[in-house]
Amino acid sequence: MKLNQYFVLAALSVGLTGTALAQFAKPESAIKYRQSALSVMSTHFSRIGAVVKGEAPYNKESVAADAAIVNTLASLPWQGFGPGTESNNALPAIWTESAKFKSNQEKLISAASNLNTAAQSGDLDAIKKAFGATGQTCKTCHDEFKKKN
Amino acid sequence: MKLNQYFVLAALSVGLTGTALAQFAKPESAIKYRQSALSVMSTHFSRIGAVVKGEAPYNKESVAADAAIVNTLASLPWQGFGPGTESNNALPAIWTESAKFKSNQEKLISAASNLNTAAQSGDLDAIKKAFGATGQTCKTCHDEFKKKN
Repeated sequence: MKLNQYFVLAALSVGLTGTALAQFAKPESAIKYRQSALSVMSTHFSRIGAVVKGEAPYNKESVAADAAIVNTLASLPWQGFGPGTESNNALPAIWTESAKFKSNQEKLISAASNLNTAAQSGDLDAIKKAFGATGQTCKTCHDEFKKKN
Repeated sequence: MKLNQYFVLAALSVGLTGTALAQFAKPESAIKYRQSALSVMSTHFSRIGAVVKGEAPYNKESVAADAAIVNTLASLPWQGFGPGTESNNALPAIWTESAKFKSNQEKLISAASNLNTAAQSGDLDAIKKAFGATGQTCKTCHDEFKKKN
């Protein structure tokens, strides 16, 4: 790699870092943001889960509303994992294996979109399948990047 | 009011309370949920605020995305204020003046919808106006129902 390529990479890196940090005034705000977004998403995902598991009756409107919220929130938390935002639950691999972490985010975003499509259609079998696929993306990412409590 | 009307009201009240509580396994979950939803909404609302105040450049896509998130979140936190979910920041008036609290929620939901419409249209003047109107609903509700820190 030539020297000027290093400069380009360095400039890009500074630019990306600057953008990520600029979203939040301080690391604690980024951590609070990502935890809040994940928490709200988890609440609505769990409500669909209760229906899928037969613990709650199926209501098309409710499940469609929950899935729309999950779909909106699925793309949000990741901006809160910028440099310098390490926290108790976040494994270092988030930053050392960032391509894998990014790939997991994209899998969730795609799965949540499919879940939303199924929920809006009102096809409970499709909802169950899409719920399972979405839950699997949560689990994979938690197994690899979240500290066990 | 006749006695049987009281029974109907009482039954409705129990039904509503039951529904509100059933959404969350325990009061702490409801409190965490509402605080998380308000926090994520506030983050995205503040980003629009930075543009409105001239502290950040106007980018139609970003503001439209932020406004859509605010609009989705605006209707969520209130389900977390069920009976038995008092917390440090929540004034008792939330429960003793519940009609007024409910009216404030509806004003925010309506204002956030208008803000989203303006943001999707890309009319910065309309965004500024709708942002101000939305911010006013936040302030009114905080003044009346949130403990000063």
